[in-house]
Amino acid sequence: MEETLQKMDAFFNPHSVAVVGATKKVDKAGHVIFKNFATNKLRGVFKGELYPVNPNEDSILGFKCYPSLTQIPGEVELIVVIVPAKVVPSIMEEAAAKKVKTAIIISSGFKEVGNKELEDQVVAIAAKAGIRVLGPNCLGVYYSKTGIDTLFLPETKVLTTGEEVVATPRPMPGNIAMITQSGAFGVAALDYLTGRQMGVSKFVSFGNKCDVTESDILHYLLHDKETKVILAYLEDIKEGREFLKIAKKVTVKKPVVIIKSGRSAAGARAAASHTGAIAGSDKIYDAAFLQGGVIRARDMEEFFDIGKALAMQPPAMGKNIGILTDAGGPGVMTVDECEALGLTVERFSEETLQKFQELKDQNIILKIAATSNPVDLTGSVTDDMFVMAADLMFQDPQICGIILLGLHHMPGLREVYIDGIVKIASNYTKPIVMCDIGETEMALYTRSRFDKLCVPSFESPEDAARAMKALVTYGAYLKKAGCADEYMEAFKKACVPKR
Amino acid sequence: MEETLQKMDAFFNPHSVAVVGATKKVDKAGHVIFKNFATNKLRGVFKGELYPVNPNEDSILGFKCYPSLTQIPGEVELIVVIVPAKVVPSIMEEAAAKKVKTAIIISSGFKEVGNKELEDQVVAIAAKAGIRVLGPNCLGVYYSKTGIDTLFLPETKVLTTGEEVVATPRPMPGNIAMITQSGAFGVAALDYLTGRQMGVSKFVSFGNKCDVTESDILHYLLHDKETKVILAYLEDIKEGREFLKIAKKVTVKKPVVIIKSGRSAAGARAAASHTGAIAGSDKIYDAAFLQGGVIRARDMEEFFDIGKALAMQPPAMGKNIGILTDAGGPGVMTVDECEALGLTVERFSEETLQKFQELKDQNIILKIAATSNPVDLTGSVTDDMFVMAADLMFQDPQICGIILLGLHHMPGLREVYIDGIVKIASNYTKPIVMCDIGETEMALYTRSRFDKLCVPSFESPEDAARAMKALVTYGAYLKKAGCADEYMEAFKKACVPKR
Repeated sequence: MEETLQKMDAFFNPHSVAVVGATKKVDKAGHVIFKNFATNKLRGVFKGELYPVNPNEDSILGFKCYPSLTQIPGEVELIVVIVPAKVVPSIMEEAAAKKVKTAIIISSGFKEVGNKELEDQVVAIAAKAGIRVLGPNCLGVYYSKTGIDTLFLPETKVLTTGEEVVATPRPMPGNIAMITQSGAFGVAALDYLTGRQMGVSKFVSFGNKCDVTESDILHYLLHDKETKVILAYLEDIKEGREFLKIAKKVTVKKPVVIIKSGRSAAGARAAASHTGAIAGSDKIYDAAFLQGGVIRARDMEEFFDIGKALAMQPPAMGKNIGILTDAGGPGVMTVDECEALGLTVERFSEETLQKFQELKDQNIILKIAATSNPVDLTGSVTDDMFVMAADLMFQDPQICGIILLGLHHMPGLREVYIDGIVKIASNYTKPIVMCDIGETEMALYTRSRFDKLCVPSFESPEDAARAMKALVTYGAYLKKAGCADEYMEAFKKACVPKR
Repeated sequence: MEETLQKMDAFFNPHSVAVVGATKKVDKAGHVIFKNFATNKLRGVFKGELYPVNPNEDSILGFKCYPSLTQIPGEVELIVVIVPAKVVPSIMEEAAAKKVKTAIIISSGFKEVGNKELEDQVVAIAAKAGIRVLGPNCLGVYYSKTGIDTLFLPETKVLTTGEEVVATPRPMPGNIAMITQSGAFGVAALDYLTGRQMGVSKFVSFGNKCDVTESDILHYLLHDKETKVILAYLEDIKEGREFLKIAKKVTVKKPVVIIKSGRSAAGARAAASHTGAIAGSDKIYDAAFLQGGVIRARDMEEFFDIGKALAMQPPAMGKNIGILTDAGGPGVMTVDECEALGLTVERFSEETLQKFQELKDQNIILKIAATSNPVDLTGSVTDDMFVMAADLMFQDPQICGIILLGLHHMPGLREVYIDGIVKIASNYTKPIVMCDIGETEMALYTRSRFDKLCVPSFESPEDAARAMKALVTYGAYLKKAGCADEYMEAFKKACVPKR
């Protein structure tokens, strides 16, 4: 591992951690964070040494407490800092003396409130000592595998009624890395990803990014075997040239989806007072993202939807899409959205039309079914019809991806078609995404089952079309970059969950 | 009631119903529909007379069966027809002889598959006899209050595992009317509305609309006291001039939200084979909707979101919006989307800024909070801070509506602010919408509680902004039409659920 990666790795795999500002006071961030580590250590998840640092305590949660970093006997690789901003430089001096590798500074009160000088002090000390700093004004890191959890927001919350409810859940392990400039968006994302059963490889909130930037993290994630897709929330980008250089390296291997806020004048003003970000011209960002192969999401929902599609399905090697439906209206809505997004829904080749005619002649599918693309099997659909039609569509060389609308309401449709479709799809390297509309039992079951089997499901026809558009965009980018075959090989082998 | 309304009323409040094609065979649509009526009659919900018609049965589910309509002893106001298409004209002849008022023709196999002549025959017979016809190729009507349920899709479905699950639920009573040209979209909408706890006043699926069109239904709903907002899925519009005339009458009293599919060339082709619709130029529709005061939804999610906002909140009387958040990043996203939609997020007046400064001086809100719009109370937010800030914002005459981002993850925020915000909002006639991000317990609870108290909640900042945009659009339309005061009066009095 190269040296910069090795150092960055101490954020995720440290042999020893000191929590500076750990406290017994239950409402304090310094308590929540230390307790996360303590609990993970007792469970055997966090395997490193753990040291609380606080001059006013002897022990915290059974761990011997140290008055300062320098008084800790063993080495310290990572420090997590939760002390008032003005004290942070002195802590960093101690960290330098202690030869700490990495520091996560949770504390706020720096550049984002005008204290640029204080932040510069921290940067200078760290630079001189070779300490990599995440933050300040951030939530830090969540990495389930090694038990690194610097989130000061407790997993549950007790309501005034005395009831305890899940408030900031930690997601299950998975192949999506989530990195964010906004801590609040970060925890919201964790909550969203948990509820939607989307697994996370690494979570990094980097706040003011006084040292470690989005580029550093992208570089680290490029080499991270557990990460297949990178989702990033950004308000600005430091060092555009550096970002572009690293983005180009990453995006040919792993899709990068970004939601960049501060698009509007008023939004940029709000961003400045939030993380001290200079949002800059939105058109420049658009151009840079395009050049770097980054997929820019239009809004929050698209951000997660695209991430899900890219994590589960291969990219599409062309823009002509087949639509398979049991519901006329939603089929039309899908076609509309595909065309609005620049995809095409062309009439099938004569060969495919002929094959569908044969299915009709054999009374396997209904004579009244529309079969020229979209294929509308109508409300008389059965599980078998869906599976057979999907197979024919996958076979058509002009079809580069399939959007399946499996509205479960149709009386003859049960749940068995789900596994049937997934089995057929596994014979091809073309992507498939699906939509079922509804918010009660059968809809929730259908979407969840498809998701589990790595066919990404969506709640509306347009969401499904947008997800497919991202697969098409990414496929075109890989082809242009000459990396499509390599990516497909890696995709087949790598961290695709089992079908 | 005028005569046309009286006749239309027999679709929803018939004194007697005959189900032509009722059968004992459990898998048949004729069974499901008859059973719906029979069950609702036994429960005392459907209070009219009920007659199954089928020459091959003596009785169905305990009801005496008649070989033909004409042999039924009493009068028949509404017939529901589920027989093969070619038999429908003869049924209509009988209906004419029986002086039936209205017919819902569920059967398909007419214009949508090229049998225009057969459909014309039906229309001719009905016109001569003065029977209003809904359909054919439709699902008909669902009206919970009188127990009219012609949906042939059973509420539950038994999986191959033997488990019974909710498949096509019927929504609770409410103030949203849902009308649809696509039956499949219609049932999907019922499923969505049920799961999202959005109540429905009337549901009408009109399919090929050989007689009763969207205009007829709009006209009926204009006078329907239970309906406050009308949601319509359309693939084409018959008689544009007539539609525009009635739309103008309705939209000054009740918001009409339309999702019009067949926007694209390929979409229009798909629509033609679906309901035989000629989708026409999309720009003409845009112009017509604008003129008629109809709000056009861009996609399915926006369609329901807008409906929810308009059903719960008054329109906004200007486009300058106040944003109140505890989460910086999501605040920026909201500002961005507002500006993209043509709303403004202007800096507050000096007076409001001064009031916020006083709150800071008194240490009621944090000194680091941003308070110039957006108001960012930061992660240190408490319930009280939210309520007080909202009150200040409502007071500002330049603020025409508020978007609240109440991310529940913040440690000091509990659930009590929800009722506090609702109470404050009830003192003003400005709209408020909210967003909390997340998909686990606390997020679901927060959104659900706000919804119950008629502050519409959304899952993403952009969704909330789009909902507010619809409230602004509708407010501007009402003002231009000179009907704003009248609408606001009616809104306050009418079917607004209790706060």
